[in-house]
Amino acid sequence: MREGPGMEGVVRLIRGDLDKLENSIEKLLTTRVTFIRDVVHHLVKSGGKRIRPILVILSSKLCGYEADGHLPYAAIVEFIHTATLLHDDVVDNAETRRGTATANTVWGNESSVLVGDFLFSKSFDLMVSGGNEEILKVMSKATTDLAEGEILELLKTSDAKTLEEEYFEVIGCKTAVLLSAACEIGALLGKVDDEKRKALRDFGYHVGMAFQLTDDLLDYTSSGKTLGKDAGRDLKEGKVTLPLIHALKSATGKEKAFIEEGLTKKRVTGKDFRTIKGIIEKYEGLDYTAELSRGHISCAKELLAIFPDSPYKSALLDLANHIVERET
Amino acid sequence: MREGPGMEGVVRLIRGDLDKLENSIEKLLTTRVTFIRDVVHHLVKSGGKRIRPILVILSSKLCGYEADGHLPYAAIVEFIHTATLLHDDVVDNAETRRGTATANTVWGNESSVLVGDFLFSKSFDLMVSGGNEEILKVMSKATTDLAEGEILELLKTSDAKTLEEEYFEVIGCKTAVLLSAACEIGALLGKVDDEKRKALRDFGYHVGMAFQLTDDLLDYTSSGKTLGKDAGRDLKEGKVTLPLIHALKSATGKEKAFIEEGLTKKRVTGKDFRTIKGIIEKYEGLDYTAELSRGHISCAKELLAIFPDSPYKSALLDLANHIVERET
Repeated sequence: MREGPGMEGVVRLIRGDLDKLENSIEKLLTTRVTFIRDVVHHLVKSGGKRIRPILVILSSKLCGYEADGHLPYAAIVEFIHTATLLHDDVVDNAETRRGTATANTVWGNESSVLVGDFLFSKSFDLMVSGGNEEILKVMSKATTDLAEGEILELLKTSDAKTLEEEYFEVIGCKTAVLLSAACEIGALLGKVDDEKRKALRDFGYHVGMAFQLTDDLLDYTSSGKTLGKDAGRDLKEGKVTLPLIHALKSATGKEKAFIEEGLTKKRVTGKDFRTIKGIIEKYEGLDYTAELSRGHISCAKELLAIFPDSPYKSALLDLANHIVERET
Repeated sequence: MREGPGMEGVVRLIRGDLDKLENSIEKLLTTRVTFIRDVVHHLVKSGGKRIRPILVILSSKLCGYEADGHLPYAAIVEFIHTATLLHDDVVDNAETRRGTATANTVWGNESSVLVGDFLFSKSFDLMVSGGNEEILKVMSKATTDLAEGEILELLKTSDAKTLEEEYFEVIGCKTAVLLSAACEIGALLGKVDDEKRKALRDFGYHVGMAFQLTDDLLDYTSSGKTLGKDAGRDLKEGKVTLPLIHALKSATGKEKAFIEEGLTKKRVTGKDFRTIKGIIEKYEGLDYTAELSRGHISCAKELLAIFPDSPYKSALLDLANHIVERET
């Protein structure tokens, strides 16, 4: 199984489509209200990784789709992702994202809520105009799961008793389902058989799980500079992620109490964070998370075995590897 | 043109459907997260007027639709309305609605944002499953307009220079478009010709305009007891509505300055409100608003002339009259 040099090769392979994608994003973002464009630009143009559109593009190509009808869907998946970011930042009271001020910091929570709603409605409006009923089904199911996942996560805030299964359900819904839908769009456009459609859908799901696991790991290990956000943000926001859940399983009463206090504290200090990170490391919470993440990537890669070799298949495998190897 | 005794007669005529609607609302609100049901129940079951579902039901019946397929759409239109209420209350920092604490007061802004998102996604998911492409088009267009209207309104907050046309655009998008869509759903289910479809769509639009104009009027005239909210809430929130816009056209420099100050003040006192209401009355801003509202109702009623007489037509005419005559 040939595996290329990471995301650079992926981007090079679909450079033409990625350029067209930026045009699609501009073209589809029609609105009578110029302010909406300003807010959306702030996020869409601030150096996101375009993982979801890239999955739409590669999956479409892998399935032999040759026209340009995948690009609006690639843009729409990014719009929906952007809508969730806008609302997430309000829910989390986040002040920065990718190193720059969040939209709610610049324009207020009100704008973030309403522009998120606009992006969401506009996305459905565009998909309805697109007229592909199967894609509409996949996407409306995905966004419903997504909203449920976000609510489940909110309900589990600061809950040190959160179970591993509950965490998996949260990240499955809030992250993996949309990456899965992105891949399934490619299968639907390429009109492949049900077996391949399912393989791509599951590929996206496992990649999504690995993506979020890695994100939650990096939140404990990265420096502010590389992740564009401060390490320890999850802890500050009371988000109980796998590294912590794993450590809590074996922690002493005293350690548990310290973590519980950290999760509910108004202000988590650098010292608190380092102590909790130390507890996580003691019980190998980071290694455990990395291992599960790699496991999902292995599953994902195996699922592509039923597709004949092609540059697009190699690119999807590279992307999968990149998901767990990235440091930002 | 026979016109009945108001909403009591309307409700009596479709009592069976309204009972079934409550079941539909329960049945369609499936989710793995029971918390979502609690939040939605808080709003959906708190004595809303069900104007939008009633429009779906009456329009369907008017157009000869005889099955039960209109009830899910009646429920969905109410879900979408509820989603906008959840988000509106976050945007407006509202503490009460219809006399009871808002969801954001009870469960926090985070829950209101995310449960609103869920209702919105779920509504699209249900409509996509319903498989009526024309209804999907109408509704996805309507919700996009709705989001734009909300943003336009936000941008005009505290802006004493807001033009009448701008105000009409705001209320057209944020209110009239959804009532218009509710009526158009009935036309689509009943499969009437384009002329009747357009008549019902426009009927809903004019009723919606009158509905919002009356709301904005009542905000200056009603007592807290009847409207379930304090009079003067719009002024406190910096909402520049027609009574004020009309008065500002003729007000003296001193009066204008007082109104401008009121719109930007952190705390509007009862005395401020009474002074500004006095200025509005001096320039007949309330009469002017009532007159425009009645004008829209006249237009709406004329549009139904192309439909043969029936109890459903009479009920729609009664509902139209009720919209401008109501005191709550």
